[in-house]
Amino acid sequence: MKVYYSEAHREHNPPFEVFEGGIQVPVFECPERMDRILGALRHSGWADIMPPEDVGLDPILAVHNADYIEYLRTAFDDWQRDGGELGARYASPVLIPAAFPPRRSAGKPRSIGARAGYYTMDLSAPIVAGTYRAAVESAQCAVSAAKAVAAGERVAYALCRPPGHHAGRDYCGGYCYLNNASIAARWLSLIGKVAVLDIDYHAGNGTQDIFYESADVLTISIHANPATHYPSFMGYADEIGEGIGRGRHRNFPLPSHTGDADYLRAFGEALELIRNFSPRALVVSAGMDIHVGDPLGDFDVTTEGIGEIGRRIVALGLPTVVAQEGGYNTDALGANVVSFLSAFA
Amino acid sequence: MKVYYSEAHREHNPPFEVFEGGIQVPVFECPERMDRILGALRHSGWADIMPPEDVGLDPILAVHNADYIEYLRTAFDDWQRDGGELGARYASPVLIPAAFPPRRSAGKPRSIGARAGYYTMDLSAPIVAGTYRAAVESAQCAVSAAKAVAAGERVAYALCRPPGHHAGRDYCGGYCYLNNASIAARWLSLIGKVAVLDIDYHAGNGTQDIFYESADVLTISIHANPATHYPSFMGYADEIGEGIGRGRHRNFPLPSHTGDADYLRAFGEALELIRNFSPRALVVSAGMDIHVGDPLGDFDVTTEGIGEIGRRIVALGLPTVVAQEGGYNTDALGANVVSFLSAFA
Repeated sequence: MKVYYSEAHREHNPPFEVFEGGIQVPVFECPERMDRILGALRHSGWADIMPPEDVGLDPILAVHNADYIEYLRTAFDDWQRDGGELGARYASPVLIPAAFPPRRSAGKPRSIGARAGYYTMDLSAPIVAGTYRAAVESAQCAVSAAKAVAAGERVAYALCRPPGHHAGRDYCGGYCYLNNASIAARWLSLIGKVAVLDIDYHAGNGTQDIFYESADVLTISIHANPATHYPSFMGYADEIGEGIGRGRHRNFPLPSHTGDADYLRAFGEALELIRNFSPRALVVSAGMDIHVGDPLGDFDVTTEGIGEIGRRIVALGLPTVVAQEGGYNTDALGANVVSFLSAFA
Repeated sequence: MKVYYSEAHREHNPPFEVFEGGIQVPVFECPERMDRILGALRHSGWADIMPPEDVGLDPILAVHNADYIEYLRTAFDDWQRDGGELGARYASPVLIPAAFPPRRSAGKPRSIGARAGYYTMDLSAPIVAGTYRAAVESAQCAVSAAKAVAAGERVAYALCRPPGHHAGRDYCGGYCYLNNASIAARWLSLIGKVAVLDIDYHAGNGTQDIFYESADVLTISIHANPATHYPSFMGYADEIGEGIGRGRHRNFPLPSHTGDADYLRAFGEALELIRNFSPRALVVSAGMDIHVGDPLGDFDVTTEGIGEIGRRIVALGLPTVVAQEGGYNTDALGANVVSFLSAFA
């Protein structure tokens, strides 16, 4: 199996994020995650790990606004040069916004802090010197996997870090800066209809946002109830797309402690929607934080359950790009990814 | 001079706020500010300090959305009961949101953290147990001052804490929860046209928001350039009101290190607008952070300059409510307030 992976992610290693209550916390989405996955893949015997192709920015700009990409490219340098509003008195090694566009404001971000607030939805998308390059290389992994699948591969795995599914058309959030799965899906849509299936524990609000008014890409997310869990503002069952995209988005919010059986029941409904859509290709946003031991989730899905999810996706018989999303129990992450992918191998 | 003041503010004493870069900082807007002002007023000989009248919530609900007031009333108890998404693992004594409504989301805040993000524009409006009561009593001070002026007093001073001018129709931010000056202005508008003049260093975005489509209340704010300073998203010169309110809002952004002469020049333009509007009464959002020594500002206005501002307002000959806003150099705060008010005394 072709596995696309870039070492550039190591330079994206923010010192902290900020949780509700204003608490600094070490970033759960850490470089060690990749080492755990790489180790398990190398053990598997079937992983052909290679760097991504440089496909430029065009596939990214097909999904994200140009002003947002320019912000990401320049944000950290601007932050280093200009600092916060109060300058050196309250210096921080990482760009995290503290003010966000109030309702009914015209939105005229000028200072770097205000631009950060404009292009960011939360305090869990900190930006450091290596963030932009890591995010671009991560997206290149997804595009490389899409190209491999378009060229005839049954499956290709983009070992993406940072992940992508919370990033919207023009905002970052939740460890995500560029929406890797959406970039792959938009690229694949050149050859026909595409379905995106998001199994990360958290709702794929960014993917929902990007394709919400698109008819040619079906997006489905199975996730924790946003009434109680991040991303809170999106991911509800009644959000089904708009305009020509109406009916082309579906959310499956599931309760806390959802185990294998209940998960697979909702998952079966999602697969049925995909079959009815008859896509030419599939992109899977593969978060492993549905696993019972995840520190940011509360589902009870087992490693075996994750393997069964993989087998049922294989049974769809579609050319498939798998893009890595979340999963924060580093001890279990390698085994979960291998369990998921082995049905394809 | 009638001075309205409530001791309830002491229970609003959050342990920290969060600045750009995710840095916890002690709250500049602290109870000591009131003690400094009270001390100077008691020395003045002309201050008649009294508690506010309980005028109920109606004057507040004439300005703020009922759902927002209900949020403020219940937020801290909900936070104590439910905690953050990850519960007791990351407990905090203060409610500060970490996620904000992304663009194009439908806005369905359910969890207390998400509701906080929905009703808050930044990380400088922390909520503790006493916040709601302090904010209501602060607003009652403003209404009491408005009633005194309506009853014939030449001037009345609302010694408001927390301050108010950053609070919009349905959001808090920048140390502000209820917009005291706007509540007083809306109450006074029952007797005729009202002008609100905001001299705080930071743009009065909340007051701008509340009256942006109103013809009967002229709002003017003189402040630091939002291109470089908080509140960043509002306060630009081309924001002049909408609909029937078009032409009834004016912003005067001024550069860093604006001193007495340049300040008074812009201020003169603002006074001319007020004269042309011929209001029945005036409300002044009196922030003292324009003073040269303020830790959150970079203007060079002197204590004597602040006295001159007061004298020129007196020369308008209008019944005037003065509502305290910012001012964070506690050593200078008492002298600056007395300098400003003594022209009225």
